[in-house]
Amino acid sequence: MQSHNVGTPIASSHALPQASKDTLAVLDHLIGTHAQRLVRRFYDAFLEDADGAAFLSHQMVETRLVHSLRQWLIDLFVSADTEAQRKIGEVHARIKLPFGLVIKGAALLKAEMSDLLIKSELDRAALASTLVFVDARMDWAMGLMSEAYMQGSMRRAQVDEAFRLFAVGQDVSLTRETQNAALMEWLQSILFPLLEGTSNADLVPLAKSTFGLWFHHRAGLIFQGAPGLEVIHSNLKQIDTIVLPKLQESRPTNGEEMRKLLARLRELVEEIKFVLSDLFQSIAGVEGGRDPLTRALNRRFLPTILGREVSIASSTGTPFTILMIDVDHFKQINDRWGHSTGDMVLQQVADVVMDTVRFNDFVFRYGGEEFLIALVEAGVNEGYEIAERVRARLAERRLRLSDGNHVQVTASVGVASYSGHPDYVQLVDAADRALYEAKHSGRNRTVVSQEAFAGTP
Amino acid sequence: MQSHNVGTPIASSHALPQASKDTLAVLDHLIGTHAQRLVRRFYDAFLEDADGAAFLSHQMVETRLVHSLRQWLIDLFVSADTEAQRKIGEVHARIKLPFGLVIKGAALLKAEMSDLLIKSELDRAALASTLVFVDARMDWAMGLMSEAYMQGSMRRAQVDEAFRLFAVGQDVSLTRETQNAALMEWLQSILFPLLEGTSNADLVPLAKSTFGLWFHHRAGLIFQGAPGLEVIHSNLKQIDTIVLPKLQESRPTNGEEMRKLLARLRELVEEIKFVLSDLFQSIAGVEGGRDPLTRALNRRFLPTILGREVSIASSTGTPFTILMIDVDHFKQINDRWGHSTGDMVLQQVADVVMDTVRFNDFVFRYGGEEFLIALVEAGVNEGYEIAERVRARLAERRLRLSDGNHVQVTASVGVASYSGHPDYVQLVDAADRALYEAKHSGRNRTVVSQEAFAGTP
Repeated sequence: MQSHNVGTPIASSHALPQASKDTLAVLDHLIGTHAQRLVRRFYDAFLEDADGAAFLSHQMVETRLVHSLRQWLIDLFVSADTEAQRKIGEVHARIKLPFGLVIKGAALLKAEMSDLLIKSELDRAALASTLVFVDARMDWAMGLMSEAYMQGSMRRAQVDEAFRLFAVGQDVSLTRETQNAALMEWLQSILFPLLEGTSNADLVPLAKSTFGLWFHHRAGLIFQGAPGLEVIHSNLKQIDTIVLPKLQESRPTNGEEMRKLLARLRELVEEIKFVLSDLFQSIAGVEGGRDPLTRALNRRFLPTILGREVSIASSTGTPFTILMIDVDHFKQINDRWGHSTGDMVLQQVADVVMDTVRFNDFVFRYGGEEFLIALVEAGVNEGYEIAERVRARLAERRLRLSDGNHVQVTASVGVASYSGHPDYVQLVDAADRALYEAKHSGRNRTVVSQEAFAGTP
Repeated sequence: MQSHNVGTPIASSHALPQASKDTLAVLDHLIGTHAQRLVRRFYDAFLEDADGAAFLSHQMVETRLVHSLRQWLIDLFVSADTEAQRKIGEVHARIKLPFGLVIKGAALLKAEMSDLLIKSELDRAALASTLVFVDARMDWAMGLMSEAYMQGSMRRAQVDEAFRLFAVGQDVSLTRETQNAALMEWLQSILFPLLEGTSNADLVPLAKSTFGLWFHHRAGLIFQGAPGLEVIHSNLKQIDTIVLPKLQESRPTNGEEMRKLLARLRELVEEIKFVLSDLFQSIAGVEGGRDPLTRALNRRFLPTILGREVSIASSTGTPFTILMIDVDHFKQINDRWGHSTGDMVLQQVADVVMDTVRFNDFVFRYGGEEFLIALVEAGVNEGYEIAERVRARLAERRLRLSDGNHVQVTASVGVASYSGHPDYVQLVDAADRALYEAKHSGRNRTVVSQEAFAGTP
């Protein structure tokens, strides 16, 4: 370790940037004179911006925001209230205003204020220090807002996910049947008046039916972002805005046209049913935390576990090692005996792995025939030992095939230990490269990553 | 609506702030000459900072970061690569670097660069435009980083929560027994050598036992932030750093001291068992999405549902109304007949509410005897009708008591409709104020909030 010249420390407590009395007086005057114009230009720009406009209406700007922003500017350069900045960050998080927009907004205000300052009578030195101060004070506010914003957004993401899983965990098969029935019920409510020739009976839009309301207000929560949602949404829209109005119009005068429209309606509804059934199918598989075949952990949890273990290792100084295990020549097994045999082999490989590691280790299915194991509080030597034990047990085990025959497989292993880098992805990459080496130097062997990040612990 | 003078538009695409050739040349020269010093001061400040130091080591700074930051500075003012800024944001999210620190770091660099520029020969105009440009370019990078950072962090929070719920959903009672047994097993491994007087047998630290590893690497995920965790952690530490070393030291020479230490050990282990059992108890209740008594939704999901409904209302223009329902004089029921009768009454009130609202509405238990109902796609009139229906049905219903008697209760209702404010908390507050009015104007009535935010839809 060497000695360092210490520069300006980053204040952990978000210290408020200070300015001379003169600078404050200049800004006081500037804001007093131009606040209205600054604020107006700010919101004009915001309302012109597609992202920004989604959060604002002209009315809101007129009745409230113009006043609030003006007050914020005054407060920022006079009283500089820490809590006020945090509060704003919280509200922004609650309304899901993208933080990039907040930063852009601040940049806009800075630019406008700089413009005014440059046009002022200030001399070189005073101008420069005022520009620097305006910038620093704004950044101070951004720093506080961003903290509150992040906290609020993370908490929200957490609760959203909890609700989604709760909704998924509710009786899904019941929901599927209920909604199928609701869709059919709506269809009947359309078809009977048409068949009976009841003229003028209003056709209820699908979007307003029980099914439509469920779809708009619940399905999005359960199937978050699934592409199928778009299909249903578009079919729903087509039915309500094209097919239904035309049906209403054409009956009872035009039989041919009506037949066509009914065929189209049927098609659209059938597709909704089909896609919906697919969506329900998909969550049945994905929501489990474990890979259904091998019972190993789902790899989507890797960031949670590895991120956490890396930060435990970093803060407590305990070692942490990961193994990347890949079955050798697995493709040949699949090709020769078929996929269901391949699956049986994988299941037994996973059993060997899980029986060999310790109770508190984490075993993930990483890819087709690849497993990633997080060995908690294990250094590189212990990691190597466990890897070799897995490899040796696997090599001597006779795995059952469905036809009663047996097969033997080997595996290659890459080992990498935490060595100071805070990003777990680096660790995974190092293990991956070690595995690659194990493969290319003949397979059925363990290779330890020699990469050390900034010296080993 | 009125016409607006349009100011500088906020570029939705994070347009890159541009500068004249002269300005770029000045910065090129400045960075070429002083990059080393800028970077050095930056990291010195960072390493001095408690929050910052948690993410860095002197070695990391020396071997990699000094170089990367230098390159970033050069790139930022020359090639200004958009993707590079996003990548940095992603990595920061992955290592959970607080975004406030990133903003502080940028402020530090800006301050140092401004210092150098002010000390240069630049005239007033050139100095001012260079200062403004440095600031704008840095903010451009912060804007991009923040977007990638927020995306990464939200995804992470989501996956973390999914894993936590998965872990909780695993066989919790089995885990409870397993870990109790593991703790007892460790205790035996300590007691037997002591009783047998086996000298020199090493006493395994609790932290290294199966229980200790489970506690450090799994329990934190399951009981996230529960205060009990701290208690166990501190007991574990006391056992390993004080009690065990003293036991090892005192045996077999000092019988009296040993008895004291064993009593202390027992005490600490008992407390761990007690707190742990409490922790397991607590998740059994909380994790359900519904209030166990009334089967209404848990209010922790309010942000998810109301936030979502407000944004659906805002983007599609459909109405949205909430009701706040409070049972009148509920305290008297509790006082007169006791809490279990009060609970029965609440259950039946909840049944009336849930039977009266529509299939797709959301009913939350908001407080002791208070319910919040989110009426999707319902305007203020429909909201009032539903509220009145609930109120009337409740007033005429005879509710059963446990002793076979009956009681009648009334409720007051506050109604508020979405009227343009993006923050759902405003809507809840408006309904709350309407409810307050209903209470204070005599109870057993519905009051509609007259507050309109920036005009009604």
